[in-house]
Amino acid sequence: MKKLKWFSMLFGTVVLLSLPIISEGQDNQARQPQAPVPARQMVRRIVSPEILPDNKVTFRIYAPHTTSVAISGEWMNNAAPRENMARNDTGLWSVTLGPLPAEFYGYNFILDGVTVLDPSNAQIKRDGVRNASVLLVPGKESDFYAVKDIPHGTLSKVWYESLSLNLTRRMYIYTPPGYESDTKTMYPVLYLLHGGGGDEDAWTTLGRAHYILDNLISLGKVKPMIIVMPNGNANQTSALGDSPVLPVPEVRPANAPAAVPVTGRFEESLVKDIVPYIESHYRVLKDKNNRAIAGLSMGGGHTQRITLTNPDLFAYIGIFSAGARNVTDELENQFKVLKSKNPKLYWVGCGVSDPLAYQGSQNLAALLKKLEFKYSFRETPGGHTWANWRIYLSEMAPVLFK
Amino acid sequence: MKKLKWFSMLFGTVVLLSLPIISEGQDNQARQPQAPVPARQMVRRIVSPEILPDNKVTFRIYAPHTTSVAISGEWMNNAAPRENMARNDTGLWSVTLGPLPAEFYGYNFILDGVTVLDPSNAQIKRDGVRNASVLLVPGKESDFYAVKDIPHGTLSKVWYESLSLNLTRRMYIYTPPGYESDTKTMYPVLYLLHGGGGDEDAWTTLGRAHYILDNLISLGKVKPMIIVMPNGNANQTSALGDSPVLPVPEVRPANAPAAVPVTGRFEESLVKDIVPYIESHYRVLKDKNNRAIAGLSMGGGHTQRITLTNPDLFAYIGIFSAGARNVTDELENQFKVLKSKNPKLYWVGCGVSDPLAYQGSQNLAALLKKLEFKYSFRETPGGHTWANWRIYLSEMAPVLFK
Repeated sequence: MKKLKWFSMLFGTVVLLSLPIISEGQDNQARQPQAPVPARQMVRRIVSPEILPDNKVTFRIYAPHTTSVAISGEWMNNAAPRENMARNDTGLWSVTLGPLPAEFYGYNFILDGVTVLDPSNAQIKRDGVRNASVLLVPGKESDFYAVKDIPHGTLSKVWYESLSLNLTRRMYIYTPPGYESDTKTMYPVLYLLHGGGGDEDAWTTLGRAHYILDNLISLGKVKPMIIVMPNGNANQTSALGDSPVLPVPEVRPANAPAAVPVTGRFEESLVKDIVPYIESHYRVLKDKNNRAIAGLSMGGGHTQRITLTNPDLFAYIGIFSAGARNVTDELENQFKVLKSKNPKLYWVGCGVSDPLAYQGSQNLAALLKKLEFKYSFRETPGGHTWANWRIYLSEMAPVLFK
Repeated sequence: MKKLKWFSMLFGTVVLLSLPIISEGQDNQARQPQAPVPARQMVRRIVSPEILPDNKVTFRIYAPHTTSVAISGEWMNNAAPRENMARNDTGLWSVTLGPLPAEFYGYNFILDGVTVLDPSNAQIKRDGVRNASVLLVPGKESDFYAVKDIPHGTLSKVWYESLSLNLTRRMYIYTPPGYESDTKTMYPVLYLLHGGGGDEDAWTTLGRAHYILDNLISLGKVKPMIIVMPNGNANQTSALGDSPVLPVPEVRPANAPAAVPVTGRFEESLVKDIVPYIESHYRVLKDKNNRAIAGLSMGGGHTQRITLTNPDLFAYIGIFSAGARNVTDELENQFKVLKSKNPKLYWVGCGVSDPLAYQGSQNLAALLKKLEFKYSFRETPGGHTWANWRIYLSEMAPVLFK
C-alpha cells in the first residue's frame, strides 16, 4: 500500500496533464499493491473541485459501487440543498454547477444518504463539531479575504490564565505585519468574538479575519491593529482536540439566537482576565479610544452585555447578527448610560433573511433611534452566515481608531 | 434544515445519556425539516469513535443504504489494513476493535470502496494532501504528547521574507511558557524539519511537537527552548489553503527516501534567511551551542546537508529516519570536517521496519563509527511513522543544550 501510494503520488502530477480525469480512485488506495503495471495505469488522482475559467465548478468522486451520489453546498439556497451527480461507465460521478458567485463555500458529498467530505479535496473547515470540504471561488466579492502575496501578520495561539473562570484557556491573537520587527509602535486592539457552536478558531478558519486585515492593511484602508479572538464558551479551555479535558465534543446550538440565556461568566472573564493579559503582554494602547469589540450572534450578545456593563472600556462596538430580543426598561437605562459615555461607533449589521437575529437587530436599532444614540445599521442580503460576518468585519475595521 | 440541526444539537447531549446509539444519522441532516416530533426522536448523534475503559474502541456510522462498510486504521499492520464493520437492522454499522495500544492514530471508513472520514468525528489530521479522522488512545505510551492542564507555550504562524527563495513564506514557531511574560530570558533554538509531502504544519498537527515540549518542560526534563518549524519545500510559500498561489495541491512523494535528489535551495534559505530572522526577532542565544537542528526523512536529509556544509552553525544534530544512501569519499570528507568541529550531539533514530531509511541509517552509523565520530543511535520498532518521530523528538530534546 505504501509503495503504491508513493508511486501514484510520484507520477500523479505528470500524467495528470494528459489525463486529468482518471477512473479508479479511492478504492485502490486501500488495496494491496499488485504486480507492477505501467505508470499511466497507476495514476489515481481525481481532481475535485475543479474551478473552470467562468467559475463553473466540477465536482468528482470515484464511487463505482455507490447507488446515488449528490452534493450539498453552501451556495444552494433552496429548501432542499442538494444536486444529484451523474455516474459515467467507469464509476466516476461528477456534476458541473454554476457559475458560482465568488465566495468561500463549504460543501459535502452524499453517498447513498451518508454525508461525507470530498476525498479529493485536502482543504477542510471545521465549524464547531462539523466539517465541510471548502472551495474558494475567486472574484471581486471574495477578493477581500483571499490570500495574497503581501505582508502577512502573525497568527498566534496563546494560552492564558483565567482566574475568573479558573481555567488555563486559549485564544488566537493576530499581530499586524511589522509588529515583531519593530519594538516601539503601540497598537490599538479589536476583541473579536465568535458565535454559539464556535470556538477561538472560528474567526480565522471560517471568518478569515487575519487575511481580511492583511488585505485592508496592505491597501492602507485600516489602521494596523491587534485582533484578539478568545474562546467564548466559559466552560471550555480551547477548541476540540487542543483541550486537556477528554475529547468528547460538547454539542451546542450552532444557530442559537443571541438572546439565549447565558451566565455572563465569559463576559466577566474578558474584562477581568483577557484585556489585562493583552495590555500587559503586548505593545498596545491602553485607553478606551484604542479598544474595539465586536461579535457575531452569541458573540454579539457578549459584546452588547460587556459594553453595557463596562461602558468606559470600549469606544468602538460592533454587533453582528444579534440584537435585543426584549427591550426592557433595564436595557434602555443601560443604553442611556452607554450613550452618555459617547462611544465613537456603535455598528450593527444583520442579514435581511436571518430568522434568528433580524428582529432583534431591528429592536436594537429602534431603541438606539429612540434614545438618539448615534449608530450605523448595515443590512445585507442573506442570513446568519459567515459570508455576512466576513463582510461586516471588512466594513467595520476601516472605521476603527480614526 | 437549519432548524432541525439546531434542535438536534440543542437536545443532543441530554438525550444521549439514555440513548447513546441512535439510528438515523447523516441522512437526515440533509433532509428538509418535517413536522415537529418529540425531541427524543429528533436526536441524530452517533458517537464515534467511542473509547471504552479497556481501550477497545467502537466505531460507528449510520449508512442504511450502503452495501459494505469497513475501517482502515494506522494501528493495522497487516498487509490489507481493513476490518469489516457490521450492520444492525436500523442501518447503523459498527465494529469494536482492540484493545488498541495507547497512540495517536489516523483512520478512515470505506463505504462501498470509497475512503472517507468518520462523519461523527470532528477531529481530523492532514498529512500533505490526505486527511484522516483521528483518535488518541490514552495510556502510558501516548502520555508524553497528550494535552495536559499545565502551562502551554505559544504556537505562532509567522511569515518572513526569504530573499534566497524570493518568496514570502510561512513557518510555525513555538515559544515556551513564560517567553511572552518575561522580557529578559534568552532561549536556545531547535530548528525542526518535516519530511517529503509535509509542510510547516506537520510537526505540530502530526508530530504534536508543541505538546511534547510543554510536557517535558513541565516535568523539568528539558531546557525551555524555541522551536522553529519551517516549510521545507523550496518552491512553496506555505501549506495548502494559506498560500497565495492558486490552491492546486502539489503532489509529492509522501514516503520518498531521504536521498531523493534535491536542489539544496531550502537548505541555503534556512541558513541565509531563517536563522537570521529568528536571531533578529526573538530573544535567543546566538551561538552554536544554543542551536540545534533535527529533521525526519527528507528533513533528515536537509539536516545532514545543512550541518555538513555549515559545520560551525549547530552543536546538536538529529537525523530521524534518514541517512546516507551512498557513502562517497566527498561525504566522508565532509563528516571528517564536521567531526573536527566537535558537535555536542549527533543523534540518529530509525525504525527497524523502515524500508525507506533503515539501510541509510545503518550506512550513516557505519561511517560515523569508522570515523570515530561520537553519535547516538536509537532503533525503535516500526517504520517510517509519526509514532516514531514523536518518540525521537521526546528523546532528543532532553539531551539538548546541556
